[in-house]
Amino acid sequence: MYIGIDLGGTNIALGLVDEKLDIVKKKKLAIIQGSSYEEIVHVMAKECKEIREGIEISGIGIGIPGIVDSDSQKVIFCDNLGWTNVDISKDLKNILGDDIYIANDADCALYAESLKGSAVGFKNVILFTLGTGVGSSVLLNGKIFLGGDKRGIELGHMTVNYEGENCSCGYRGCLEAYASATALIRETSESDAKTVFDQEDGKYKEAIDRYYKYLAVGIRNGILAYRPGLVIIGGGISKQGDKMVVRLRDEVKKIEMYFGNETAEIKIAALGNDAGIIGAAAMYRDNN
Amino acid sequence: MYIGIDLGGTNIALGLVDEKLDIVKKKKLAIIQGSSYEEIVHVMAKECKEIREGIEISGIGIGIPGIVDSDSQKVIFCDNLGWTNVDISKDLKNILGDDIYIANDADCALYAESLKGSAVGFKNVILFTLGTGVGSSVLLNGKIFLGGDKRGIELGHMTVNYEGENCSCGYRGCLEAYASATALIRETSESDAKTVFDQEDGKYKEAIDRYYKYLAVGIRNGILAYRPGLVIIGGGISKQGDKMVVRLRDEVKKIEMYFGNETAEIKIAALGNDAGIIGAAAMYRDNN
Repeated sequence: MYIGIDLGGTNIALGLVDEKLDIVKKKKLAIIQGSSYEEIVHVMAKECKEIREGIEISGIGIGIPGIVDSDSQKVIFCDNLGWTNVDISKDLKNILGDDIYIANDADCALYAESLKGSAVGFKNVILFTLGTGVGSSVLLNGKIFLGGDKRGIELGHMTVNYEGENCSCGYRGCLEAYASATALIRETSESDAKTVFDQEDGKYKEAIDRYYKYLAVGIRNGILAYRPGLVIIGGGISKQGDKMVVRLRDEVKKIEMYFGNETAEIKIAALGNDAGIIGAAAMYRDNN
Repeated sequence: MYIGIDLGGTNIALGLVDEKLDIVKKKKLAIIQGSSYEEIVHVMAKECKEIREGIEISGIGIGIPGIVDSDSQKVIFCDNLGWTNVDISKDLKNILGDDIYIANDADCALYAESLKGSAVGFKNVILFTLGTGVGSSVLLNGKIFLGGDKRGIELGHMTVNYEGENCSCGYRGCLEAYASATALIRETSESDAKTVFDQEDGKYKEAIDRYYKYLAVGIRNGILAYRPGLVIIGGGISKQGDKMVVRLRDEVKKIEMYFGNETAEIKIAALGNDAGIIGAAAMYRDNN
């Protein structure tokens, strides 16, 4: 048995996960705004103790919403939580005594999808998670690709429209500035992306058309860089489901480059919010 | 001893290459415009016979300016030469009797740079070749990365400015539409890129500033996708040398994303035009 923790910018989700990667128990709690690093570590430790009560666990995996150095197992940078260079593995182990493995949250999600979700049977896959930001993860030859320096890749900040919109990273024209929920909210002044999609045939037709066009450009760029067999869409916006897949296939087809074979398939992530917990547990299991 | 052939859109360069990957003899000839596939194969066979006269060779490597399916060893698509789905390995072997290995030309160049050029000592590298178009190749963990379907990657056609210039691929806003010699010629109406660079402090200051800005965006995107330790610039435009490296480092620094460590180094390719011949020979040597 393992504990998988999906640490978000505003929530902590954790679960007890068995050898088959089924979640046998889970819990979600809000992070109190303005919490310090120490406070969050303390809350995580308390919740781990509670969920494992009376149960033997092998270790704990944590998905981090930021840049993780896979080799040193440190969090390099985590914008949402205001963390820089924190050693959460060590700090949590000091309290709990358990071995811990940390990984980027999108990498956890794709790893879970590759083991028991939409990516089963595929060896080369790109995941885009569409939410407040645009997360990404890449599977190459069956393994999560961590980039040359083992700090992960960031396709959400690829420039797709250099002379365009400002991005949260301080730069301009990133995919995230067009394909995140935040981008749709900016474009329409609605309070959430769902409201915008609800009127995609009405007053927000243009905004949604533009959204798909840019997301397709991001997919094109990912395909040119990795030539995967599959592209998965996850995150809150992926609740648009099949309708979204049909639109995206169409838009990608319009702009794909000729390589003499079929373009990558496009699918919605299968595991939803559980992917983070399952993937974090699996990351611990398979790296220890 | 091997023969390495660097097939271009307008020239064929070939050389005899020894076990140390030194070129012991080489030749370059123009391709007569409008030559058919069969005519080019015939010329290549004739030149191979000539250059190897009296010398035992192990095999022949060819760098192809287009999309190669590494597994089937067929040329999928070669825009400059008007080729689609040709089996040049088989056709040339039928004439010469030698074993042949084909690979993309940028992959050959980067392979050569990694063995005895600018990339020695680096395991994760991106090469951009800046000429009529923008070629690219990626080394991951010491091996040429061929993408999930083994047909190579194409960073020159990543979209960097979606609402921008038309590209030769029929699409818009690709890196190639900004960072190729063709782009500089389009912008300035000069007949070659060198003339434009010669006046980079004068009437073409703005065009060159824009050129570097966009090339830096392409480098940013490559870094986000692969996190390499090194980016190499090759192709005709790389003759700008150190001056170019200084400008590019500067521009990339302005727009780099924070990963808590040093950005990739930037260097000019060391082997110049010989990279194609050496790399093609090395590709044969190391894949047979």
